[in-house]
Amino acid sequence: MVDIATRVYNHRWKMDPIVRSLIDTDFYKLLMCQSVFRKRPDTTVTFSLINRSRSIRIADLIDEGELREQLDHIRTLSLSRGESTWLRGNMFYGKRQMFTPEFMEWFEALRLPPYHLETRDGQYELTFEGKWPEVMMWEIPALAVLMELRARAALGSMKKFELQVLYARAMTKLWEKVERLRPIGALRIADFGTRRRHSFLWQDWCVQAMREGLGDRFVGTSNCLIAKNRDLEAIGTNAHELPMVYAALAENDEALARAPYDVLSDWHEEHDGNLRIILPDTYGTKGFLENAPDWLAGWTGIRIDSGLPEEGAEIAIDWWTSRGEDPRQKMVIFSDGLDVDRIVSLHKRFSGRVRTSFGWGTLLTNDFRGLTPDDALAPFSLVCKAVAANGRPTVKLSDNPRKAMGPRDEIARYKRVFGVGEQEEVEVVV
Amino acid sequence: MVDIATRVYNHRWKMDPIVRSLIDTDFYKLLMCQSVFRKRPDTTVTFSLINRSRSIRIADLIDEGELREQLDHIRTLSLSRGESTWLRGNMFYGKRQMFTPEFMEWFEALRLPPYHLETRDGQYELTFEGKWPEVMMWEIPALAVLMELRARAALGSMKKFELQVLYARAMTKLWEKVERLRPIGALRIADFGTRRRHSFLWQDWCVQAMREGLGDRFVGTSNCLIAKNRDLEAIGTNAHELPMVYAALAENDEALARAPYDVLSDWHEEHDGNLRIILPDTYGTKGFLENAPDWLAGWTGIRIDSGLPEEGAEIAIDWWTSRGEDPRQKMVIFSDGLDVDRIVSLHKRFSGRVRTSFGWGTLLTNDFRGLTPDDALAPFSLVCKAVAANGRPTVKLSDNPRKAMGPRDEIARYKRVFGVGEQEEVEVVV
Repeated sequence: MVDIATRVYNHRWKMDPIVRSLIDTDFYKLLMCQSVFRKRPDTTVTFSLINRSRSIRIADLIDEGELREQLDHIRTLSLSRGESTWLRGNMFYGKRQMFTPEFMEWFEALRLPPYHLETRDGQYELTFEGKWPEVMMWEIPALAVLMELRARAALGSMKKFELQVLYARAMTKLWEKVERLRPIGALRIADFGTRRRHSFLWQDWCVQAMREGLGDRFVGTSNCLIAKNRDLEAIGTNAHELPMVYAALAENDEALARAPYDVLSDWHEEHDGNLRIILPDTYGTKGFLENAPDWLAGWTGIRIDSGLPEEGAEIAIDWWTSRGEDPRQKMVIFSDGLDVDRIVSLHKRFSGRVRTSFGWGTLLTNDFRGLTPDDALAPFSLVCKAVAANGRPTVKLSDNPRKAMGPRDEIARYKRVFGVGEQEEVEVVV
Repeated sequence: MVDIATRVYNHRWKMDPIVRSLIDTDFYKLLMCQSVFRKRPDTTVTFSLINRSRSIRIADLIDEGELREQLDHIRTLSLSRGESTWLRGNMFYGKRQMFTPEFMEWFEALRLPPYHLETRDGQYELTFEGKWPEVMMWEIPALAVLMELRARAALGSMKKFELQVLYARAMTKLWEKVERLRPIGALRIADFGTRRRHSFLWQDWCVQAMREGLGDRFVGTSNCLIAKNRDLEAIGTNAHELPMVYAALAENDEALARAPYDVLSDWHEEHDGNLRIILPDTYGTKGFLENAPDWLAGWTGIRIDSGLPEEGAEIAIDWWTSRGEDPRQKMVIFSDGLDVDRIVSLHKRFSGRVRTSFGWGTLLTNDFRGLTPDDALAPFSLVCKAVAANGRPTVKLSDNPRKAMGPRDEIARYKRVFGVGEQEEVEVVV
C-alpha cells in the first residue's frame, strides 16, 4: 500500500532542510552557552567560517541560493516543547536540572541572529556577529549545512543503485571499524561527529550501528537531538572558544596569562565529576599545565585535541604525577583526527595507565574516502571559530602550528606570554 | 507518517510466503511445459529433490512445519489475470502469442499437485508425482522455497544493524562484479538465478542493479515474474528434463539413442531463431554432436552447462566448422557455475570466434559466501530433477561425472548406448 498522503506531503516541500532542530548541535555548546549566558552575556563576538582545506573550492560546489535557504531555515527554528522538556528534565552526567530555569527561558526564546555571506576566490565568507550566547549557537549548524550541501552536490548525478551501493559501501566500511573495535574490552567511545558529518541521517545511522555493535562501550553522542531521539547519553564538556574569547577580552599581558585559568575557575564553580575535563592546548599544553593552579590537578581528566596525542597524554601523566595525583584515576579523552588505527594504538598504549576515552568525530560520521571515483565525498577541514570579541581579535595556538589562528602580531604576543617555543607540525586531515 | 493500515495488514500475516506467483519461475519451464502439454501430456513423472551438498543437513536447518506451510501455500496459487494477460500478449524472443490459447486455458486452470515429504538422515525427501506438465512446474518454486527457508534460518538470530550490514556487504559484492563486467563492451548476460537465489527480494534487487549497471548488455532474466514487473526480456530455452524423460520412455537402445534428437526435432517444429539452442550434454556433448543430424547444425547456438566450459565451446566450434557452418554466426551460452572471473575469461577467449552469452545463476543471486562468520549463507548445490517417467528411472550423464544421476546399471547402459568414455570430474560448487 502506498501512503498517498505521505507522498503528497513530501512533494510539497520547497526544500529538504538539513538542520531541523536547535538541539541538532553538540552538547558542549549548550553547557558553554549556559556558562557564557551567566558570566559574559553581553560580550559581542564574531564567528567566522574557515576552510583549512583551501583546495576544496566550496563556493564552486555549493549553490549560494541553496546555502542561503538552509541558513534562513535555521533562523526560523526554535526549541520545541519536547526538546525543552528533555533539556529541563533529563539527567546529564548524573545530574538533574543541568540547565537552570533562567537559561531555559532564554533558550526557549532564542532565534539565531543574522548571518553575513560573501563569496571570495571560490570560498564562502560566512560570518555571524552579535551577543556571544546567540552567535555561538551558529557554529555547529553552519558547519553541518556546508558539509551536507557539499555531499548533496556530489550525490546529485548518481543513479539509483549506484547511490544504494555507495551507502552499502559506507555501511560496510563503518561496520568493519566496529568489528575492529569490538575485541577491545574496556573501551569507552563516543560520537563527536556532528559538525563534519556526511549528513544528519548518516550520523544517526552511525550512532545506532555503534550502539548495536559495541553495546555499552559506546557511551553516547555529542549530538543532543540524536541523544534525545535514541535515548543515549549526551556527551561533551567545553571547547577552545571559552579561553579564546576570555583571552581576547584580557586588558593586559598579565590578565591574558590568567585568562585560560579564569575559564576553568568559572567552570569549576558550575560543574563537577566527569564534566571537569581540562582542554589544555589552546595556548600550548606544556606551559598551561606547568603554570596551572593546584586545584586543576584535582579535576577528573584532560582532553587531547591537537598535536601528537601520545605526547599530549604523556605530558598529562607526568603532570599529574608531579602534582601528587594518581594518573590511573584520571581520564584522558582523545578527540583529534581519530580513526580506528589510532584508537586501537592509543588504547593499547594508555590502557591501565589512565582511563582512556575517545571522542570520535569526522572519520566516524563522514568516512566516504575512496567510495566515489573522484573522491568527491572525502571529508575536509572546515571550522567555524570565534575570530573577535568586543572588537578584539582572538588567537588560538594549539599544539599544532597548522591549527593556529589569529593576526600574526597577536600570535607572537600570545607565544611570548604563554612561553610557547618550537612546535611540531602535524597534518590536519579533518 | 506511519501508514497504520499497512502495518496492521502486515502483522496479520500468518506467514511470509516465499513464492507468491506461479510465474515466479524460469521462462524455459513454461516453454517446455507447453511443448510437453502438446506432445506428451499424459506421461506420468516423478520429480525429486536432490541435495548434492550432503554436508548441508537441510532438515536440521529448516523446520518441517514451515516447509509444509510454504509448499501448501504454493498449492493455493493460480495464474492471475494480469499474469495471464502478460503471457498471452507479451512478445517473447521477438514473437507474439508464444503460448497458444489451449495452453493458456490449461495454465489458467492449473493448481500444483500434491507433494510427498519425508525426512531421512538430515535431508528432506521431497517428491512430486503426477502428470508431467503439472509436476514439472514444482521444480523451481520447490528449490526457491528450500533455499530461502535455509537463508531465513541463518538470518533469524542476527541483529538489526548486523542484518543491514549483511545486505550492504552483499550489495557491495555484487556491484564490484558489475564494475568488473562494465568495461566489457560486447557483453550479453542474463539472470538465471531463480532456483538457488538467496530470496525473491534479493534476486529482484540483483536484476535491477545489473540493469542499471550494465544497461542493454544485461539482456534479461529467466524469472517471468521479475521480467513482467521490471519490463525486461524473459530468457530461457530448454533443459535436461526433456531428453531425460524422452530417454526414459524409449522402448529399446535404438530408441534411446534417438531420444535426444527427438526432443530437438519436436522443438524445431515449435521454435526458431534464438530459441533454437542445443543443450548437448545430457548424455555427453561429444557423442551427441558427432551423431547429430545436419539440420541441428543450422540451429542458432548451443548451451554449455557442464564440464569444462572452454572445452565444450571448442567442441562446438569444431563441430560447426566440420558441418560447414560459420561459428562466428553462432551463439554459445555459458550457464554452468559462472562467476565474474570465468565470465571475463570465457568472453576474452571466445569473443569474436562465436557470439558469447552468459546465463548467470547462483553466484549472481546468492553469493553470500564469506559474509557471515560461519558462512551459513553460502549457496549449496540443491536440484530438483525428474527421476522417473511412466515408472522407469531417468538417467543423466552430463559432461561431469559428479553431476551424473540414475541407477548404476542404467548409467552403464546409457554410457554404452551414447558411447561415453572417460570423463573429467569438475567440482560442483553450486
